[in-house]
Amino acid sequence: MSDQTPDLDALRAANPEHWRRAGAIRTLTLDAVAAANSGHSGMPMGFADVATVLWEKHLKFDASRPDWPDRDRFVLSAGHGSMLLYSLLHLTGFPEMTLQQLKDFRQLGAITAGHPEYGHAPGIETTTGPLGQGIATAVGMAIAEERLRARYGRKVVDHRTWVVAGDGCLMEGVSQEAIALAGHLKLSHLVVLFDDNGITIDGQVGLTDSTDQKARFKASGWQVLECDGHDPAAIDAALEQAKKGQKPTMIACKTHIALGSALQDTGKGHGAITDPDMVAATKRAYGWEGAAFEIPDDIKKQWEEIGTRGSQARAEWEVRFAEMGASRKAEFERARRGEAPKKLSATIKALKRQVSESAPKVATRKSSEMVLEVVNPIMPETMGGSADLTGSNNTLTHDMGIFSADDRKGRYLHFGIREHGMAAALNGIQLHGGVKAYGGTFMCFADYARPAMRLSALMGTPVTYVMTHDSIGLGEDGPTHQPVEHLAMLRATPGMNVFRPCDTVETAEAWELALTSQSAPSVLSLTRQGLPTLRTEHTNKNMVAQGAYTLAEAEGKRVAILLATGSEVAIALEARKLLQEDGIGTRVVSMPCWELFAEQEEKIRKRVLPAGPVRVGIEAAARFGWDRWLVGERGKANKADFVGMEGFGASAPAGALYEHFGITAEEVARRVRALL
Amino acid sequence: MSDQTPDLDALRAANPEHWRRAGAIRTLTLDAVAAANSGHSGMPMGFADVATVLWEKHLKFDASRPDWPDRDRFVLSAGHGSMLLYSLLHLTGFPEMTLQQLKDFRQLGAITAGHPEYGHAPGIETTTGPLGQGIATAVGMAIAEERLRARYGRKVVDHRTWVVAGDGCLMEGVSQEAIALAGHLKLSHLVVLFDDNGITIDGQVGLTDSTDQKARFKASGWQVLECDGHDPAAIDAALEQAKKGQKPTMIACKTHIALGSALQDTGKGHGAITDPDMVAATKRAYGWEGAAFEIPDDIKKQWEEIGTRGSQARAEWEVRFAEMGASRKAEFERARRGEAPKKLSATIKALKRQVSESAPKVATRKSSEMVLEVVNPIMPETMGGSADLTGSNNTLTHDMGIFSADDRKGRYLHFGIREHGMAAALNGIQLHGGVKAYGGTFMCFADYARPAMRLSALMGTPVTYVMTHDSIGLGEDGPTHQPVEHLAMLRATPGMNVFRPCDTVETAEAWELALTSQSAPSVLSLTRQGLPTLRTEHTNKNMVAQGAYTLAEAEGKRVAILLATGSEVAIALEARKLLQEDGIGTRVVSMPCWELFAEQEEKIRKRVLPAGPVRVGIEAAARFGWDRWLVGERGKANKADFVGMEGFGASAPAGALYEHFGITAEEVARRVRALL
Repeated sequence: MSDQTPDLDALRAANPEHWRRAGAIRTLTLDAVAAANSGHSGMPMGFADVATVLWEKHLKFDASRPDWPDRDRFVLSAGHGSMLLYSLLHLTGFPEMTLQQLKDFRQLGAITAGHPEYGHAPGIETTTGPLGQGIATAVGMAIAEERLRARYGRKVVDHRTWVVAGDGCLMEGVSQEAIALAGHLKLSHLVVLFDDNGITIDGQVGLTDSTDQKARFKASGWQVLECDGHDPAAIDAALEQAKKGQKPTMIACKTHIALGSALQDTGKGHGAITDPDMVAATKRAYGWEGAAFEIPDDIKKQWEEIGTRGSQARAEWEVRFAEMGASRKAEFERARRGEAPKKLSATIKALKRQVSESAPKVATRKSSEMVLEVVNPIMPETMGGSADLTGSNNTLTHDMGIFSADDRKGRYLHFGIREHGMAAALNGIQLHGGVKAYGGTFMCFADYARPAMRLSALMGTPVTYVMTHDSIGLGEDGPTHQPVEHLAMLRATPGMNVFRPCDTVETAEAWELALTSQSAPSVLSLTRQGLPTLRTEHTNKNMVAQGAYTLAEAEGKRVAILLATGSEVAIALEARKLLQEDGIGTRVVSMPCWELFAEQEEKIRKRVLPAGPVRVGIEAAARFGWDRWLVGERGKANKADFVGMEGFGASAPAGALYEHFGITAEEVARRVRALL
Repeated sequence: MSDQTPDLDALRAANPEHWRRAGAIRTLTLDAVAAANSGHSGMPMGFADVATVLWEKHLKFDASRPDWPDRDRFVLSAGHGSMLLYSLLHLTGFPEMTLQQLKDFRQLGAITAGHPEYGHAPGIETTTGPLGQGIATAVGMAIAEERLRARYGRKVVDHRTWVVAGDGCLMEGVSQEAIALAGHLKLSHLVVLFDDNGITIDGQVGLTDSTDQKARFKASGWQVLECDGHDPAAIDAALEQAKKGQKPTMIACKTHIALGSALQDTGKGHGAITDPDMVAATKRAYGWEGAAFEIPDDIKKQWEEIGTRGSQARAEWEVRFAEMGASRKAEFERARRGEAPKKLSATIKALKRQVSESAPKVATRKSSEMVLEVVNPIMPETMGGSADLTGSNNTLTHDMGIFSADDRKGRYLHFGIREHGMAAALNGIQLHGGVKAYGGTFMCFADYARPAMRLSALMGTPVTYVMTHDSIGLGEDGPTHQPVEHLAMLRATPGMNVFRPCDTVETAEAWELALTSQSAPSVLSLTRQGLPTLRTEHTNKNMVAQGAYTLAEAEGKRVAILLATGSEVAIALEARKLLQEDGIGTRVVSMPCWELFAEQEEKIRKRVLPAGPVRVGIEAAARFGWDRWLVGERGKANKADFVGMEGFGASAPAGALYEHFGITAEEVARRVRALL
């Protein structure tokens, strides 16, 4: 290993066939980036040797069956190097990844997006690009593997998660959360290949970082190895050693970014090499002949053989899987498809019936626990956790057991004070398949989890975020802990269902929708403070599924409509009482999920929000976004108002804060009267 | 040092006076938490000894002059232990921190909020509570100190930043960004006191973490010390050693959370001890007599002497400061007050005039650079940087120099791939005083920076976030890098000004507002792609200050109003042309800052957005929030439409994406016609 400029001819001479295989990745990258006139050439060029050895000798996969549950997961955390992944998928024969797709790199409609996008093609195990996400997501995949191995046995679940991470990934704070969690949990099937090229966009890593990454990983309990990332034998030995560890392994692979080009070992080499002369010169330096996108037949054949290398193992696995008991197989498959068990519906209905009768006054975070207490026993595929707020988020139920280094059968994760790492791990658990993931924190700390939550929405991973203490109702902890703009932030995010249930019945309905979601993450916005049960008349129908509905109809002429969510629905009902006492016919609409309501047909939306009456929205949060329902949807600007927060909260008991900020039934009634 | 339960009597006997001083913190904490019936008792009880020795012997401060610029900064990153800070401020005689305030802990209107809130009282140097923020903010304070020391000399700037951080702070990813950055920059005036009590809310730290924190800090270039956190001599020795280092120092202070109570060394001890018997028993164990909130006179006197300990040094500093040249003094004071230099206004006007004449077609990120190129030379108090996207964010100007371990005169910070750490550091730089901070990243990565950006808004720190590549106009990097909901997220945040300028002139005006802001952070939402100059007629008036204004008036009868921001204003003008060609009188309103427009009088808002015409909003982002302007403000639901994004973006050249998502002049014109 050396920091010197490598001698390409010597590398080539030492391992001629390997060199050509790796060269296929390098030149496809050069060609695709040149064709797109944008992209990141340097990373695939630098890391091609490591990737080649990994895929050739260690990665367990079968290109013809990318959905094989027991495959190894390959996560390109350094997602800007997407051409590395696309090249590997194409060369090894993943059917979707045609040569044409490579030629259409970064073009509209191609599956070869600038960064790997989950869902675009088999073999892309997760969306990466925002740095640090891949490594943190991979921790979740490794957790899921451990849990399923404990549940189904080593014969059917025994695979690894391989992550390629660069300096950027390791500088992002989320990587520390991931590293510490993985080390603590002794996730020995997790291997991080650190592309140690010493370069970031701004220049030498030395410009911004002096961290001894190896010491850092060791400090969190990792096995740490290193190798010359251009020496196939050294790479192979390190990968072999990685598989033997009892801890997660990090291999620092010393590489040269943009190897062999004029931009080698420079910040510019991180980006797109598009100059035709430079591309040509680099190919010559590789000893590569032929036209753009042309791979010699013998090299393509070698790669295709690599693509079928796992087929035998896969076939053997299928035999072992077939030998499992029928019910276990069915259970395995059901969970893998992300289908809730049939009895979930009846379980939720029974809880709703019971609760609508007993009408408890509880915080919706407690309601959520009541749901989980009946759900977790019938859904053994759930894994839940909290970022060090277990007792506050009410996420732990009696039957779960704690997942730890010593107990892989446990289903509950103490994530530590790592909201971001938790959210990314939830994505990974969910993406792995076979497990249904949820995790809790205070809603305000959605801020910390946000980059990973956005990826949940973008990928459509149906994880559930249990976000308690969802307003000034949190009380004394004060404005740093009181969400104001967070509902807006989450609702503005495409592809995410934000539920703010008003009582235990709505919480049960929201959980049912979250647990049966196949393609959207769910956020449950839950209170710290106790709320009365408002749905005291049982209905089998899941009313939350409609997004918004009439909870209490006006008596007499309908003059006003109060729209509210969560903890403010009870206030709306109180206000309705005050108004009805004065003969002002008032409807109360509960709006637990804007997204689902927006999806309803006009007919239904019109029934809930007819033209005419004055409208007042009530939510202990920013008005931002509310005008859609207050002024839009047949509303009128001069007949609409909103009772909520106009700035940040304050530190005081919850009741005092509601009074202070004027979020009271009296104020709502006053606003309605002012509009009449 | 021992993990054994400490012998309180022995501790007391060994250092009787120290024990009583520390006891004052402990008992005030017990009393305040009991009175509030909520809060966090354990941390102040455990850390009182370290805090006592620090304030007694090392912290440079003068309670009577908390605004002394050369004071040490004390940052309670473990903000839940707020009673530690409030007790210290009260005991040492900070005038605002009266005993009554302690009695009103966590009550409405008190300055003693659940977590320390910047601005509530002198001595609270920053808002903490969201874990990890304090340590990351402190890095910025230490950077500012180094920079100002280089600029004004050691005689007037020579102080330290002390941080108290717990396991929670160190588990949060942002702490890694802070630690790595501080170690790299060799911020030797930064000392982190790690409250190493082995407890988090969920229980033993061992439940969630196995990290060797000392090794982790060493890996990033820190001096690492440790001490028994209940032994005053050992604490003193460690603090003394910390001041000698050439690197930042971390001292692992082994402590017992909730020392001396029945909840000592437990997760429950982290929270509120409110049981009267337990409070009484704990005080007895301390050997403490007297009623609640009662501090023996001699102890209060000792503490008040500590509070005046720095008055001599402060007086000497004032002499040295007075000896500085008049212009240097004036400059120091001006920057400290956060006042822009008088010539800023003329400089901006000159640039506007020049640009409105030359009418360049440039991306607004480039416009921003053009502004900084004329501003940085006349504002030597600016420090800017980027999270490894210097060449993309255009944040570096020719005269800045690079701030590094070797060059403290440099004003440009290579923050590394650490958006969150950067944002927190910007807060710290700004809070320190004397420096005006800005930092850049891609707007999508506001997600990473979000927790610290929220604190900017909550504290009112007027930092500037330069957020480039602010839409699908980013192009090929794809949906992970394309903001869609981020404008909504930022606009929904109280106390933040979000600017989305349409050309270089508006960019200059936005920068002027950001640079003169005293109490609000600013976000500049800037394009990657080139935009024409639209403000080709020079006006001295800062039009962006109005938030929204008529850029192009309708010819003939005003039938339609197009509302647009940033890159879509040019599209609006094109659409206007198409419509006017058909005789449809169309006004174009540029809305570079919603917040400032919302603050305008009704009269002005009405002039810009009169009732009557159809309205179409155009922004390459989610509609979320737009209805306020389209349907509200005299608008009508059936006469309003929006052209923008309905979901996530895609990977393709920018032009193709605008076509694909229908954000074109033709589409805008079509929508207008459909409403007529």
